[in-house]
Amino acid sequence: MPVYTCTTVQSTLDAQTRANLAGELTRIHSMINHVPGTYVNVVFHELAADEVYTDGEPAKPLLINGWVRTGHPEAQTSQLVAEIASAATRVTGIPAQRVLVVIQNSPAHFAIEGGRVLPAPGEEEAWLRAQRDGS
Amino acid sequence: MPVYTCTTVQSTLDAQTRANLAGELTRIHSMINHVPGTYVNVVFHELAADEVYTDGEPAKPLLINGWVRTGHPEAQTSQLVAEIASAATRVTGIPAQRVLVVIQNSPAHFAIEGGRVLPAPGEEEAWLRAQRDGS
Amino acid sequence: MPVYTCTTVQSTLDAQTRANLAGELTRIHSMINHVPGTYVNVVFHELAADEVYTDGEPAKPLLINGWVRTGHPEAQTSQLVAEIASAATRVTGIPAQRVLVVIQNSPAHFAIEGGRVLPAPGEEEAWLRAQRDGS
Repeated sequence: MPVYTCTTVQSTLDAQTRANLAGELTRIHSMINHVPGTYVNVVFHELAADEVYTDGEPAKPLLINGWVRTGHPEAQTSQLVAEIASAATRVTGIPAQRVLVVIQNSPAHFAIEGGRVLPAPGEEEAWLRAQRDGS
Repeated sequence: MPVYTCTTVQSTLDAQTRANLAGELTRIHSMINHVPGTYVNVVFHELAADEVYTDGEPAKPLLINGWVRTGHPEAQTSQLVAEIASAATRVTGIPAQRVLVVIQNSPAHFAIEGGRVLPAPGEEEAWLRAQRDGS
Repeated sequence: MPVYTCTTVQSTLDAQTRANLAGELTRIHSMINHVPGTYVNVVFHELAADEVYTDGEPAKPLLINGWVRTGHPEAQTSQLVAEIASAATRVTGIPAQRVLVVIQNSPAHFAIEGGRVLPAPGEEEAWLRAQRDGS
């Protein structure tokens, strides 16, 4: 259901670190937002050094943008963003000063996965059960 | 007006399939949201195999993210997302289980194209007429 | 705080033009939205010629997508998008007809930078002061 898009300059994260970060984002999202890991997508955009700027100068931030369904309780989203930001530094070693995490959202019924409209937050279980039953 | 961003692993879609998918997304959006095809943009991000993860493992989903103007009737957006998801599998052969379509939105007046603030949904005709008249 | 993502076909913008555009977007955002330039990020995605379509045909638009915090006054966002669109053409020479600027937003507390939840619009000063004081 969610998509996390991580943007860095090339060679900032090696392949193992990308895999580790993808694993952590998946674990955290799955735990907090009640979504099986099989529905959590993480992609990495690795750009050239002269394609990333902060304050108008070439820079090396780690930008993480996540899309989630609208309607999760506020406290849950706050916990999500906090744990993702914390994991980003813990897994990559990039200091928090260069890490920006942004969560965006839109209604669950504006999204389709596996041929089915996504469930609103809180209705995941029935949705997953129907998926398993092939109904 | 809209932008559709399709993200896959490299070599998932060949050039002809990308062109076909761009054509179908354009046709569908134009028909349902009353926007001439000349205003429909489709871009493809083709990432390395170790830059795309599902469930924390390298994977090959087709992720389609569309931006549209806020204010289209709900039923219209539901139809839009359904037809896009259906076209994605029909055109690419990628099974629905690996396709995620997400529509996001923001107000039309948060966007400018051709030097002019975009029209709210329903006001496209007057906007296009003014464009043609150069007024 | 904000992230501006500029998408073009490769070789549309040379390195100097990218730097100039990043500089202008930073200056404009900083001035209008009261954010120090050190918090303004600009990234460029340069795609292959057969990865960008308008009206279902390969095309060369300049697509600028900005993420900002929800809650800026409407007039401020209107000014922001107008000045960014104007700067895009002025800096790159790409005619307005091929430039699309879209601003998206989500709540400030859905984002973390430097380890701290972002301030709501209007509360930047206290937030920056606390940052400087290390409190």
